[in-house]
Amino acid sequence: MFSKTVVENMAGGSWIRAMFELGNQLKAQYGTDKVYDFTLGNPDPEPPEAVLAQMEQLVRTPNIHKYMSNAGFEDVRGKIAAYMERESGVAFTAKEIIMVTGAAAGLSITLKALMNPGEEVIVLAPYFMEYNSYVGNQNGKVVPVKTLPDTFQPDIPAIEKAITANTKAIILNSPNNPSGAIYTEESLQALARVLDEAEKEFGHPVYVISDEPYVKIVYDGVKVPSVAKIFKNAITVNSFSKSLALPGERIGYIAVNPTIEDADTLVAAMVYCNRTLGFVNAPGLFQKVIADHLDEAAGLEAYKERRDLLYDILVDAGFSCMKPQGAFYLFAKCPMEDDSAFSQMAIKHNIILVGGSGFGYPGYFRLAYCVSYDTIRNSAQAFKDLYKEATGK
Amino acid sequence: MFSKTVVENMAGGSWIRAMFELGNQLKAQYGTDKVYDFTLGNPDPEPPEAVLAQMEQLVRTPNIHKYMSNAGFEDVRGKIAAYMERESGVAFTAKEIIMVTGAAAGLSITLKALMNPGEEVIVLAPYFMEYNSYVGNQNGKVVPVKTLPDTFQPDIPAIEKAITANTKAIILNSPNNPSGAIYTEESLQALARVLDEAEKEFGHPVYVISDEPYVKIVYDGVKVPSVAKIFKNAITVNSFSKSLALPGERIGYIAVNPTIEDADTLVAAMVYCNRTLGFVNAPGLFQKVIADHLDEAAGLEAYKERRDLLYDILVDAGFSCMKPQGAFYLFAKCPMEDDSAFSQMAIKHNIILVGGSGFGYPGYFRLAYCVSYDTIRNSAQAFKDLYKEATGK
Repeated sequence: MFSKTVVENMAGGSWIRAMFELGNQLKAQYGTDKVYDFTLGNPDPEPPEAVLAQMEQLVRTPNIHKYMSNAGFEDVRGKIAAYMERESGVAFTAKEIIMVTGAAAGLSITLKALMNPGEEVIVLAPYFMEYNSYVGNQNGKVVPVKTLPDTFQPDIPAIEKAITANTKAIILNSPNNPSGAIYTEESLQALARVLDEAEKEFGHPVYVISDEPYVKIVYDGVKVPSVAKIFKNAITVNSFSKSLALPGERIGYIAVNPTIEDADTLVAAMVYCNRTLGFVNAPGLFQKVIADHLDEAAGLEAYKERRDLLYDILVDAGFSCMKPQGAFYLFAKCPMEDDSAFSQMAIKHNIILVGGSGFGYPGYFRLAYCVSYDTIRNSAQAFKDLYKEATGK
Repeated sequence: MFSKTVVENMAGGSWIRAMFELGNQLKAQYGTDKVYDFTLGNPDPEPPEAVLAQMEQLVRTPNIHKYMSNAGFEDVRGKIAAYMERESGVAFTAKEIIMVTGAAAGLSITLKALMNPGEEVIVLAPYFMEYNSYVGNQNGKVVPVKTLPDTFQPDIPAIEKAITANTKAIILNSPNNPSGAIYTEESLQALARVLDEAEKEFGHPVYVISDEPYVKIVYDGVKVPSVAKIFKNAITVNSFSKSLALPGERIGYIAVNPTIEDADTLVAAMVYCNRTLGFVNAPGLFQKVIADHLDEAAGLEAYKERRDLLYDILVDAGFSCMKPQGAFYLFAKCPMEDDSAFSQMAIKHNIILVGGSGFGYPGYFRLAYCVSYDTIRNSAQAFKDLYKEATGK
């Protein structure tokens, strides 16, 4: 009676959300401090004080709650253009910026504006599986290409092999969810050369959609290379869910490189899709709220402490994993072949995690460490016990 | 290079937005007080004082800006369920309520959850043309059926004739944009009988999607009949854009009648679509803001004064029109056959309006009277001159 596609697809559901619901059940059963729930990337700090103060202060600004242009407030777009230019050296102006209802909206809008049915989008595994839905909504095809084991850097020859005449775009997500890797300047430059070659061979661009919600969540002074600078056909999608701890408010933007051929038409198509997909415009108050906080990184110090602690606990327990360079996820090697069986085993130790199969990269598991320091510290023995049970050692 | 469908469709664009842009140009040229811009349904009052005060007060509520369930905050959904039960007598509970990013999002999500490619949705003209996009996104077909001239009430025999085995739903919008009509209890009961017959004949329900953003903007003590009460297969979509003057903040809800067969599956499908279309969840702060203001109608008195004034001015100038019963639009008969030529003629008199063709109902024109009382008063002579030029009288 309802949409066949939706009813079929929702049976697959979201692994992350399913584990999150299970975590809540266990907490009700055993008590919150006895359950080590590493499932959901829900930033645990409150937004920075300056951001909260600005919300209060902006509430009574005349016209702030009314309809504005579908692309968003002009002054906010101007500030983001200036920020993007500062970060990339590319001459962005307000007209290349579209305010959107979070990065998920930005990706949906971008893919609808770009894609024709049957076209392909390359994603680099491990990856956020929601990309499958956004591409599927346009009757497109996701082509996953695995990143290199251990470093999770792009596998350039594998990407080159995956590109066809039907390739419309590649989605990059660095700092990466779930691996915590930051793609290096060298990797990205090599990818740019491959895409230039493909453009010559197939006669049309391969767009680079850079999903960057974690760009401010970076450790050890590592610099995230600017995708907008490296790729002439870059479309940057960003949100303030992580950097300002505002995930429930749905605020972000799209920045279309002015170096894209017919960039004006693409922007107009995106604004049209923003309207006709039913987003209409990004929430007015939060557009204004974020405009003066583009460089902040809420809770960065706390995330770093937790990363260090969790990494040490895992290594100490016997697990093998890369130390994350950014975001707030740790992607460790599963000591059993079947990561789904492993996540079930973890539940017995009151650890809730998401298997790598949930990110198109079996044999690993993800821990979201945007949880309290105490939760991580208290989980040490459970991880030791889990490792012993899984390996028999 | 981009989506062919999008690039083609956006060439058609939005009549309303196009006239809105033109209005801004004229204002820059002649001065704001010399241009009578009746194009956009952008509520001109600020939100009620109590709503603004609540925003300020809620800003520092712990966890209010974080991810919540994709369906929205449980307490807010409970309050809306109680409100819906009070209005309809139907036993709604929180689990039938989904918080969404405005009514446009609610319609997009509803149609995606319901429709299979090629299925049909009946809309009653005059109607908000954006419905074409929302249905088109699902590769569905819009079947417009004209309401009766003069009263703009549903033409029941015509609807009966338009229903086929492929009819998935009918969209109702009462109080209506653009006509200002409120569909009567009698009309709706007759429609319910027709839909019951169709369900028997075709073996599946025809869902009633009730788009109700104007349900609180009602004049002269007229009561809006409850669609959720009259139709067992009702899906109510509402927003606070008009009732609380918050259109830029994108906050609304879907209420699925518990009397729908497999209502639980439909709700789950909608929550899934909320996530996978990229909405994720309705903005957290505004979910909490609206929860205690479900019965307010911002600016109602002022709208009524403006309706009365504009109606008198039009009739005095010679135009023929129905006095609107709700919403803030007046839909008058065009004194020339070609409403597009008429809207061009109006521009010469500094009047910006939208022709009925922009609502699938040629030969009429719409005036949005959510503009200042002075703008309306000052437009009197211009309407007289326009009528004279159009009729030669």
